[in-house]
Amino acid sequence: MKLSQYPFNTVRETPAEAEIVSHQLMLRAGLIRRLSSGLYSWLPLGLRTLRKVEAVVREEMNRAGAMELLMPAVQPAELWQESGRWEEFGPLMLRLKDRHQRDFLVGPTHEEVITDIARREIKSYRQLPVNLYQIQTKFRDEVRPRFGVMRAREFIMKDAYSFHMDETSLGEGYRVMYEAYSRIFTRLQLKFRAVQADAGAIGGDVSQEFHVLADSGEDALAVSDGDDYAANVERAEALPLLKERAAPKEPLTRTATPGKARCEDVAELLRLPLERTVKSIVLAADKKGSPAQIWLLLIRGDHELNEAKAGKIEGLGQGFRFASEAEIREFFGCEPGYLGPLKTHKPVHVVADRTVARMSDFVCGANEKDFHYTGVNWDRDLPEPVVADLRKVVAGDASPSGKGRLNIVRGIEVGHVFQLGQKYTRALNATVLDEGGRAVFPYMGCYGIGVTRVVAAAIEQNHDERGIIWPEPLAPFHVVLVPINAQKSQRVRETADRLYETFNAAGIETLYDDRDARPGVKFADAELLGIPHRVVVGERGLDAGALEYRSRRDTESQEFPLNDALSFIRSRLSR
Amino acid sequence: MKLSQYPFNTVRETPAEAEIVSHQLMLRAGLIRRLSSGLYSWLPLGLRTLRKVEAVVREEMNRAGAMELLMPAVQPAELWQESGRWEEFGPLMLRLKDRHQRDFLVGPTHEEVITDIARREIKSYRQLPVNLYQIQTKFRDEVRPRFGVMRAREFIMKDAYSFHMDETSLGEGYRVMYEAYSRIFTRLQLKFRAVQADAGAIGGDVSQEFHVLADSGEDALAVSDGDDYAANVERAEALPLLKERAAPKEPLTRTATPGKARCEDVAELLRLPLERTVKSIVLAADKKGSPAQIWLLLIRGDHELNEAKAGKIEGLGQGFRFASEAEIREFFGCEPGYLGPLKTHKPVHVVADRTVARMSDFVCGANEKDFHYTGVNWDRDLPEPVVADLRKVVAGDASPSGKGRLNIVRGIEVGHVFQLGQKYTRALNATVLDEGGRAVFPYMGCYGIGVTRVVAAAIEQNHDERGIIWPEPLAPFHVVLVPINAQKSQRVRETADRLYETFNAAGIETLYDDRDARPGVKFADAELLGIPHRVVVGERGLDAGALEYRSRRDTESQEFPLNDALSFIRSRLSR
Repeated sequence: MKLSQYPFNTVRETPAEAEIVSHQLMLRAGLIRRLSSGLYSWLPLGLRTLRKVEAVVREEMNRAGAMELLMPAVQPAELWQESGRWEEFGPLMLRLKDRHQRDFLVGPTHEEVITDIARREIKSYRQLPVNLYQIQTKFRDEVRPRFGVMRAREFIMKDAYSFHMDETSLGEGYRVMYEAYSRIFTRLQLKFRAVQADAGAIGGDVSQEFHVLADSGEDALAVSDGDDYAANVERAEALPLLKERAAPKEPLTRTATPGKARCEDVAELLRLPLERTVKSIVLAADKKGSPAQIWLLLIRGDHELNEAKAGKIEGLGQGFRFASEAEIREFFGCEPGYLGPLKTHKPVHVVADRTVARMSDFVCGANEKDFHYTGVNWDRDLPEPVVADLRKVVAGDASPSGKGRLNIVRGIEVGHVFQLGQKYTRALNATVLDEGGRAVFPYMGCYGIGVTRVVAAAIEQNHDERGIIWPEPLAPFHVVLVPINAQKSQRVRETADRLYETFNAAGIETLYDDRDARPGVKFADAELLGIPHRVVVGERGLDAGALEYRSRRDTESQEFPLNDALSFIRSRLSR
Repeated sequence: MKLSQYPFNTVRETPAEAEIVSHQLMLRAGLIRRLSSGLYSWLPLGLRTLRKVEAVVREEMNRAGAMELLMPAVQPAELWQESGRWEEFGPLMLRLKDRHQRDFLVGPTHEEVITDIARREIKSYRQLPVNLYQIQTKFRDEVRPRFGVMRAREFIMKDAYSFHMDETSLGEGYRVMYEAYSRIFTRLQLKFRAVQADAGAIGGDVSQEFHVLADSGEDALAVSDGDDYAANVERAEALPLLKERAAPKEPLTRTATPGKARCEDVAELLRLPLERTVKSIVLAADKKGSPAQIWLLLIRGDHELNEAKAGKIEGLGQGFRFASEAEIREFFGCEPGYLGPLKTHKPVHVVADRTVARMSDFVCGANEKDFHYTGVNWDRDLPEPVVADLRKVVAGDASPSGKGRLNIVRGIEVGHVFQLGQKYTRALNATVLDEGGRAVFPYMGCYGIGVTRVVAAAIEQNHDERGIIWPEPLAPFHVVLVPINAQKSQRVRETADRLYETFNAAGIETLYDDRDARPGVKFADAELLGIPHRVVVGERGLDAGALEYRSRRDTESQEFPLNDALSFIRSRLSR
């Protein structure tokens, strides 16, 4: 493409509306333009990259035996009423009425539609397993759309759905998709990790997220340095930090801690390590028609509660909230800050984190303002607690895989593979006949990739202060060809014209900066646009029969012979 | 693709819901499935054809210098309020409110969005001309969606928009698109005609439609047999059928025609040719604050009024309706059926069709029940009328191009090219600076192709009683490979397996019917699916070292040597 014929310009200034670097660079480089809150147009240079992501996704999905179809973006409400999600999905779903006042929605996802297709078309075990996918526009009406296409309302997703006769087949289909996803992100030359999205302890459903690693990532990931264990921090299992509980050495002592409501302050006052203190967190579970149940969760003073884990405790799984001050006063007879498991005013459900359950001679609130207990010991002063994994993992924790220690890295979720089981086939009564002629509910998997988001995530991972640094498979063009002062030199212009034709004829996608602009402007735009390979044609080089080459990741240029241009550039291309 | 692994089945019976053959065959062949009224999923075999149309459209648009972008499907109401079309578009536009109760719509077209992009990005004449296009999902909330994807509510369109500094450049850009469209439909091997969509007499805007020709087409097209003149019948100019007006020979005579209110009946009663009679059509044009204007339009008894042409008469351009019986009685002093231009009760605006204006000694109503006048003559009995082209052309009419006669053929509109002028750039105040530094409104063209509709139109044009007959560029697969009784013959199975690999390796898209089914079932499906080339592998042929070949358009099969299979099939492929 000749830049002189490209109507869109780059922008020097960082747009005020853009908070993250990918959004800033996509606007500055002219890849996208905002139409309205969370709605973006993809300009030609951006669309070229988007299409490359789509093409790799499509190739690898086909290679994995999946079949592409295309479902409507607008869907009738009936199917969602059947699955129960018409109510459940909430305001994230864009609802509308057609001219006949019938309810429709702009699809945020397609489980209902694909299950409807399956129940009409798939009647026999002989037609299974099958994996059907589409690459399609979705809409989620985010409360606060932001970060450009990273969290837009309208976006493009690759969504795949597989159907199986049994869980073994589902597991196999899931593994095939996991491998396809790994190939996709490897081919896109992105650094990524597949992480456990769910501890799997209770639900039984298997689910993994694919994250592009970037310091700016929204999600914290716990990654083992000893093997390939990786999990979203929200889901990573925390092992107990003590091998066993030591025998009590101290007497239980009511200790004055005036004005010291935080563990840190108590530890400092008592000159004890923070690791000797225990934090009390009071939760309430509401039940219809009866008073709220009050729960006391205990974690070590230096730890943080992982609310996702609290939600897995039986009794809290239906939803919980932090208790109100009134509830705390009612059950503990004390104001917040001095709470503990000993001598509560009314009985509460006590759950101790795995580490807390192995502590001895610890410190906790005395349920009395300005007082704590020291030398607290399970079994002696308190009954043995219910034990659960409650805390967030931290860097340096032993990996739950048993090998190595955890590092915390940041990632951007770009893919998700999920074993759905029979949820939708049961809800929509989608049965098939098994070998014995019995109607059974197939097992489903679903597999998503946020295609538009991949583009932004790739930039978060690959940029510098001058602009984007595209991995070659994502670059809108492989080579940018920059003639210097071509308007003054016929030789430069003709050489550049010829190179442009040579490269194009060789299938090398070339952006020809044939604009009548200063070299500095052209270089700055080439770097902002992130084209992997730059070839400069100038008078001085031509005198020596040479061109200048620079990789976008290099700081130095090098010369190479003009009459060897094509083979030189080919040797730089990674494919 | 191996059919044994394809989960969707063909259907023997013609679905009752499908009125036209393309809809019936697309359902029977399993190309599409209905989700809801006017909403269809494209199953894998259908999507393969759809993608082929897209690919050809994209290649030819790029070759013509257009640049692809992608605009959101969901659009904010503000832009449409700015252009005035938020009110104008009516219930065809699917409106909705987001979670913040702001007005949005699912885009039926994108003039407003592209003009908004242009006014933000294009500041100078140096950035023009430019042509930007997308291939994207649109929604039009049809009152009565029908005919499958032919008139669906959600559909895929290629819509292009060009911007120009002046009308000359617009004309050139329009010509380039016209040629690109001709190449697209030629490459798709469809019989098509580009027709005038507008006579251009008054509006000045230039517009042409591209129609795929098919007997079942919704539109009637007038096509000259003497040159390349073609126009939608609604728009085709009708020349006067008489060279000049003959001198009056008969006296004006009030003639009793009791109970004969139709021209046909009057002609029969009076034993005159129908061509001697004149039909009276009474229209009313409402104007705010004053009584409706009454118009009398006169056409020959055997002709039909073309309402589009009536709308071009000055005074009727703002809209008209057929007059009520009360209005007719008030202005003509008579009931309908006996009306005419002589001695009306109150003055009316008389307009005569070109042919009527050259008639003499004609018959028309006498504005008196059960009476007509015969021997009516202009100038003698009546003042010279206002003359206009009012009638629909009919087969056999002289072509308005001056060469040949018109045939009436039927077509399906699949494309439209349009010179919009400054309508949207003015409405949205999208200016650019010209060479002199003055802000001017660019001229726009817009160019659409109904991508999903092309698939249905191709079937309407190419089918027989056994199924689809795909033109090769549209076929989901080029070759269908049918082994006979492979379950009983290892030799047949192995030969077919090997051929499948050989064809695939050679880039020949092959559908391998490896199902354990009877030959008759396989042949019927191959014909229903419309695969252009069929190769049969059977024991008997293999004994002679031969395979069987049949083109979908042939009635006879032929044998060809097994060891020459690839080169034989290659010679049959049209590319």
